[in-house]
This record gives sequence, C-alpha cells and structure tokens, in this order.
Amino acid sequence: MTNNTQQARRRFLKGLGVAGAVAAAPMAAPALASSMRSDGVKWDKTVDIAIIGSGFAGLAAGIEAKRQGANNVTIFEKMPVFGGNSAINGGLYAAPATPMQKEKGVQDSVERMVADQMKAGRGIADEGLLRHVAEHAMEGLQLAIDAGAEFHPYLQQLGGHSVPRTYQTSVSCGAGITQPLLKQARKEGVETINRIKFDGFVLDKDGKVEGIKLKRGYYFGEEDSGTEFFVRATRGVIMATGGFAQNVNLRMAQDPTLTAEVGCTNAKGATGEGMFEMFRLGAIPVHMAHIQSGPWASPDEGGFGYVSNYSIFNFPHSIAINRMTGERFMNEIADRKTRADAELNCRDAEGKPLPPIMVTSWEHAKQHPNAKKVLKYGVGWKFDTLEALAKHFDVPLKPLQAQIEQYNQYVKSGVDEQFGKNMGKAKGKYIQAPFSVVRLWPKVHYCQGGVQITKEAKVLDSFTGKPIPNLFAAGEVTGGVHGVSRLGSCSIPECVVMGMTASRSIMQA
Amino acid sequence: MTNNTQQARRRFLKGLGVAGAVAAAPMAAPALASSMRSDGVKWDKTVDIAIIGSGFAGLAAGIEAKRQGANNVTIFEKMPVFGGNSAINGGLYAAPATPMQKEKGVQDSVERMVADQMKAGRGIADEGLLRHVAEHAMEGLQLAIDAGAEFHPYLQQLGGHSVPRTYQTSVSCGAGITQPLLKQARKEGVETINRIKFDGFVLDKDGKVEGIKLKRGYYFGEEDSGTEFFVRATRGVIMATGGFAQNVNLRMAQDPTLTAEVGCTNAKGATGEGMFEMFRLGAIPVHMAHIQSGPWASPDEGGFGYVSNYSIFNFPHSIAINRMTGERFMNEIADRKTRADAELNCRDAEGKPLPPIMVTSWEHAKQHPNAKKVLKYGVGWKFDTLEALAKHFDVPLKPLQAQIEQYNQYVKSGVDEQFGKNMGKAKGKYIQAPFSVVRLWPKVHYCQGGVQITKEAKVLDSFTGKPIPNLFAAGEVTGGVHGVSRLGSCSIPECVVMGMTASRSIMQA
Repeated sequence: MTNNTQQARRRFLKGLGVAGAVAAAPMAAPALASSMRSDGVKWDKTVDIAIIGSGFAGLAAGIEAKRQGANNVTIFEKMPVFGGNSAINGGLYAAPATPMQKEKGVQDSVERMVADQMKAGRGIADEGLLRHVAEHAMEGLQLAIDAGAEFHPYLQQLGGHSVPRTYQTSVSCGAGITQPLLKQARKEGVETINRIKFDGFVLDKDGKVEGIKLKRGYYFGEEDSGTEFFVRATRGVIMATGGFAQNVNLRMAQDPTLTAEVGCTNAKGATGEGMFEMFRLGAIPVHMAHIQSGPWASPDEGGFGYVSNYSIFNFPHSIAINRMTGERFMNEIADRKTRADAELNCRDAEGKPLPPIMVTSWEHAKQHPNAKKVLKYGVGWKFDTLEALAKHFDVPLKPLQAQIEQYNQYVKSGVDEQFGKNMGKAKGKYIQAPFSVVRLWPKVHYCQGGVQITKEAKVLDSFTGKPIPNLFAAGEVTGGVHGVSRLGSCSIPECVVMGMTASRSIMQA
Repeated sequence: MTNNTQQARRRFLKGLGVAGAVAAAPMAAPALASSMRSDGVKWDKTVDIAIIGSGFAGLAAGIEAKRQGANNVTIFEKMPVFGGNSAINGGLYAAPATPMQKEKGVQDSVERMVADQMKAGRGIADEGLLRHVAEHAMEGLQLAIDAGAEFHPYLQQLGGHSVPRTYQTSVSCGAGITQPLLKQARKEGVETINRIKFDGFVLDKDGKVEGIKLKRGYYFGEEDSGTEFFVRATRGVIMATGGFAQNVNLRMAQDPTLTAEVGCTNAKGATGEGMFEMFRLGAIPVHMAHIQSGPWASPDEGGFGYVSNYSIFNFPHSIAINRMTGERFMNEIADRKTRADAELNCRDAEGKPLPPIMVTSWEHAKQHPNAKKVLKYGVGWKFDTLEALAKHFDVPLKPLQAQIEQYNQYVKSGVDEQFGKNMGKAKGKYIQAPFSVVRLWPKVHYCQGGVQITKEAKVLDSFTGKPIPNLFAAGEVTGGVHGVSRLGSCSIPECVVMGMTASRSIMQA
C-alpha cells in the first residue's frame, strides 16, 4: 500500500468532510481498489471459512459453520473488542408465532410479520428475504437462548408491528446476545482474532474469491498500524461487516443533512469499508439512500444511551408533544421513518430544532429499568404537576392540558381519533401526575442500503446478475431487505438468520 | 476477456432476470472488473479527451472541450446512431430568468428554480450542484440555440415548477437539440465514432485513469461482436453514459416492482454498464433506489410515445380522473413522484391497475401538435358528450359531472380547493365538450442514482472522498443531484451544463 493510500484511508476513517478534503488536495491519488489476484500470494493461514465481523451475523455464521461440519472457521474483528455494533444495540428481537406469544395469547404468523414489514418498506422491500428471515426467526432466537442469552419475561409491541412480538435481552442491550454467542462459538471451536482489519479480497484467475488480505495487529484510528496477513478460505468468505452510519462522508453522500453534528447510535467501527470493497468487486449497491434515524433517541446524551430503550418501552402508553403547540404531532408507535420525519418537523418560530417531549405517567414509566437511570444522568425529568412540566419545557399549558384530556379519552375508548394509534397496549394507562419526561430527536441508526444478496446469502454481480463465487454476506452490510424503513427489532433476527444461512449455503454446496 | 465473461455480459445486456440466471448456473464465474493496468497496453489511438456517450452531456462536453483549446477530442458511441437516450426524450429545457420569461412577464430567478427543485428532492438533493446548473442553464440553452436548435415560441409550466420556465424544441423531442449539437461538434473538429463500446478503464500504477478499453465495430445486443481497441486520453475521460432504466435486473434490485412488464421511456442502450464500471473503480453509488417513473405516459403505446408530450402540455388545464370514483385524485401539476404514486393507487375493486384518464377540452388540447396524432394512432379519444366519455371508460357519470362542475369553479376562482393546484395556466380554460381523453400510467423514465460528483464534474472515490484522477462524469450517469424526485425539464440543462463543466475542469486544470 502506498503512503498516499494510507493517508487517504486514514482520512476516510476519520470521516473528514468531502469538501474539505477536495479543497486541500484536489487531484492526489485515490486509494486503489484493494482487491488483488492470488498469483504469488504467500498465505499466512488457511481456513475453511473466513468470517469478517463479530456482530450477530458473524457469530451466528461461525457457530452454524461448525455445526454444519466445517473444520477451520475463523472470525476476524478489526476492533479490540468483539461484538461490533451489535453489542451496543437495544437487544430487541422480533419473531412470529413464538412460545411467549402463545403463552400470552397473541395471534401471530410469518405472513403477518412480513406484511407489517412490507408496509414499512413502502413497496420496495424484498419479500422473499423477509419471509426467509421470519420463517427462521424462532430458530435464531433459540440459538441465542441455547447459548445462554436471557430475555425479559414480557413481549413489546414496537412501532409498525401490528402485535407484540418483540423479545428483549434482560440486560436491554445487544451484548446480552453477542456475549453468549461469542462464548458458544469458541466452545464449538470457532477461532476468533481481534485487532485484525479486512483490507481487500484475493481472487483467483476466474474471479473467484480465494481469500482475503488483512492487517494484523491493527489499532482502530491508526491506519498505518498492523502488518499484512493473507488468509486463504477454501470454502468461502462471509462478510458480516455492518453498516456505514459512522462514516460521515458516505452518509452525507446519500443525505446531505446527516452531517457530523447529527447524533449516531452506532459503535465507532461502523465505517463501511467492507461494503464498499464489495462494490469494487462488482456487488450491486441497493437502497443506499435509505438511512434510518431512530425516533426514540435523546439529544441530551451520546449514542444509543439510556433514553432509547426507555422510550421504545414507553411509547405505547405515552404521548409525544410538540413544545410549540402543546399538542401531539404523531402516532407514537408509527414506523421509524414516519416518526423521525415528524420529530424533525418540530421547530421553533425561526425554524430551529425544538426537540419534542415524551410524557409518561411515572407509575408506568417506572416499570422500565432505565426510568431511574434517565433521572440520575440528567437526561430525563420527573414532575409532580403539569404546570411545573409546562414551565420547564416552555410548553403552552392550556393546549397541553386539553391534549392530555383528549388523549385520555382515547385510552378509555380504545380509539385514537387523532393519529390512529393502536391503543391496545395503552389500556387503562392514563396520562396523569406525577409525570416522567424525556426529550426526543432522531439519531442516525441503521443503513438499509448495502450489497444485494440472494436468499442463500450469496452476493450478486452487477454485470452477470449471478453470485460472485465463494462470497457471502449477512446483516447490515446487505441491502434491499427492508426497503424504505426497517421496523424495530427486525435487524437482530435478520443478522442471526442470514449468518446461519450463509454457513448453510457454503456447507451444503 | 474470457468466454465466460463474454457470455456473462451478454446475459447482463439482455436483462435476463436475476432469479432465472441464478437457477440456471448458480456458481459460474462472474464478469471480472474490466478495468486494468496500463502496463504493456498498446494504444490504438491517443486523444486529449475521450468522451463516452453522445447524448446531451457528451455532445456539450465535446463542443466545450474544443472551445477550451483541446486538440483531439473524440466521442465514442456504442449504438449505431448518435444521440443516445437524449434523442428520444421530450426536448424540454428549464432555465431561470430567460429572455422569453422577460418577454412574457414571468418573474423567475436561480434561487426560485433551485427552491422548486429542492422541494421535489425532499431534503436530499444536492443544492450546490442544482445552483451550479441553474446559474449556467441559460448559457447551455444558448449553446443549443447557437448550434441551430429551434424552440416553440411559448413557455410551459411543468409539474412542481412554480412558474413557466420550460422551453421545448419545435420538434417536441430531444433530437431537436442532439442533432444540431452533433453537427456543431463535428464542425468544430470533434471526432465521433459509433458502434464502439466502452469496456473498462485503463489505469496507471497510481490509479489515475490513463485511458479506456473499447470494442470497435460493436453491434448492440451481440456481445461477442467488436474488437479490442485501446484509447489513451492524456487529459481525461468524461463518462456521459446515461442511466440504467432499460436494465431490468438492476432496476429491480432497487425496486422489485419495476419488472420487465413495466413500460420504459428510454432508448434501448440505457443499460448502465458505464456507471457500474465506475463503482468497480471506487466511485460512490448515490441515491440508486430513486428511479423516477413518468406520470404523463400512456399504457396504450410503447416508450415515450405521443401521449407523453401531449399530456405534459395539457396537464395545467386538464383534470385527471379516477375511473372507480369519477373524481380527481391528484394535483395535475404536482411533482412527478407525487403524481406517479397517485396514479399507481388507481385500482379496481380487486386491486388491479385501472389507469386513470386525463380529460381536456378539445379546443385547448388541439393546441398541441400531438392532439390529432393520439387520435390517429388510437392512443387518445375524442367525445362530443360527457355521457359517451363516461360510458366508454366505465366511469360513474354523476360524480364525474359534479367533479367537472366543481373544477370549473376553481378555474373561475383561481383557487383549487381540492389539491391546491396552481390555476394560473388554467385561467379561462374550462373543461367542456367536446372532450379529448388519454389514459395515464407511469413508465420507468429516469435514474436519479449514479456516481457522486463535485461541482467540477469530478468523480469521488469512496475510500478517500477525493476525485479519481482524470475521471469526469456528467448527466444521468451521475447521482444525488435531484434527490428523491427530479422535476421535469431539469435533466437537459443538467446534462448540457455538466458536460460543459467537465471539459472546463479538464482544460482549466
């Protein structure tokens, strides 16, 4: 790698603005496509299956590969810790027709879950892939449970889902799944190496992926670190490298409003180089412009924080209030895009962002483990009277009072005449003092875009429409599955199922 | 090129369905990235600037390159005829603050045009690029006029534009611009070669684009045809290869509903291989999912046809009617996406497409040159009474009568209380017998997605955020300019201005 290329990569990872970089050195050499031919390569290691990334998809792929009889399976992770962005997500897992649904009398099916997702996808989701994931979602959940993952004893009904079908880890975090899966993977003989960064594919003369080039001993943020390391993968390479939400240049290329100032829930490593290297190999970029912001995030804390899980849990029995009007402005459990767009419209008289508030009765809010934490860390507030709440957030009191009375009528009647919210989970849960309040503002959360795959997790080539031999991808690095808006808690099942699917495709070939 | 690769490319161009291809030969070798190093290449030809594609962008680039002092400039066109998809488009050209606007008393400005486009772009258009194009739009129009292009003596107000600012060629077709530009380009010394297909870039050791690989003597649809031909481009390569609306696989990757059965207005050559080769080089894919369908097209004829220009002209003083209800269902001059989505919602009781009708008074419809042609070719109808019209299209008569009376009130008052249509161009134009009618159904028309460029028409690299040296792109092959929905008549100015811009960037470097 030339010195220019190294410098360029460093800039890439630091997310330096495009305009700035162009102004500084308009015609310097770009990074070349890093993939290369295998002629003369000295392999440092040979495995059956090489897996890049140690989030849900990579870990599930590793375990399943061993169970399918693969001998040498290695997971390569660029960061010092395993688990990727998965480890810090909300730990929410949607599945249809589960034991807990049966226990609680919830009618659900694969078809119903797919229909909910197709609606949020606004016509361009991949129905076949969604169905494949839904059909295997319970199997993926069982994989996690068998590995030791623990879940809350209740189901949640997240925005856009027509029934409660979402499990959540008892630690309310993705690490409640990645840690057991990591342990299980190692127990079953999967090798795991950290601080080793994917740096390109190695191809044979026919374009088959024969192996990968890596940088071993890599320190994130120090792009000169690490030494070249070549791994031959005799049966296939599984790319489970995640999205690019933390890459400001690449997300701004799709949406100029997603500047460095906009918050992001993702782990720092979500920078997308694995995805873009696949585009250089000929993979088809799908739905790159559809970047999802989480409508449950708080502007008062960094990343996913404490508020996100708190508000996801509380939305069904809370009201979201525009502070200019004192009135509701959205269905609190609509799909993510609908809500994020509605929140972004909450502006002061000058058009500046005025984060709306979510108001919940303390007696219901306190059911969530984070209710006290948001108070402790100063990102949530508790008020004994509506007057105090209105004064604190500068909300007009009378319209707010009237709105709460009106909403409480909907709680009573079971019909939301304003926004058509499903009031099933709000039954008997009136909005009344004392109040628990958090502020809301969307944060960049998930990239629906990525490489196009088949139901076998094969990566398609743009010129042939056929799979690139020996290349597989699973999880957020793939695109087109969810369409315009992904429903909450549908990413973990996708990652786990498609990771398992990739290993089955390889071993059953 | 291997035999496998040739076969693969043939499949690519024939637009064979992905599913079918996969089923037939799941793991055959894909086409390799065609770009290659220049070591040992024997150049067949050396030019200053190589331009790929002979549509608006390529032709404007060619002329401007000569005017900026380039010696050898060659335009390479894969099809037997020059002009590309541009030659068969509607010939509509939007520009702000033009002589005809002044003459007709229309207040307009660069800012106003950009604001209209930003609104249609739904927040993700590239404001800087839109402004650059709007600022130079009149200059581009003058280039065409000076070359001999002739325009109708009136301005049109197309959907989403807040004022009339659209010129149209007197032949109501893009050939009214491409033919004069082609003639002018040759007159100024630009060489033009047809039946020669771009087949990849040739790079120097630092990744700079040193030239291109082509297939000379190529016959479209016969992918084995043609012989290898290497062209060195000492100052740069301009990619003006257009969109991929005719590539069924690639458009379905973005939107599964855009099957081979969906109509398309584009020329057959709009298959996208130039764009995807740039992705293989590291260009950033932007807004690939935003594929625009023309809401003015007819399901009763192939391609752009006669109806499209007829209905674009007549929408301001026509009503669009849902045949199930007999009522209007959209603002007839909303932006394209708004209208296409509204038309796609026109369904019968079983949910099957029921193309809506556009009803115009014959006395106004006949002002357009295609009014008689649509009757002659059986894609338009004329009725003396509303009863006959309603009977022919199975529309409930009473609601239709009531709707027309109501709409005529809006014509009188100047305020559309149903859909907020700007009634300025409808003044005095009541809907009355005899009636002229066409059917409407969207056709795939334009790809907003493509490679990310700067205002200098430079193509950015995904790893560095900096331009790929000596590579430029202009026109529909670029992405991100227009955002979610492109306003009608804004593509030709973009193509012409960015083509000129590319040549200026090269020659002023």
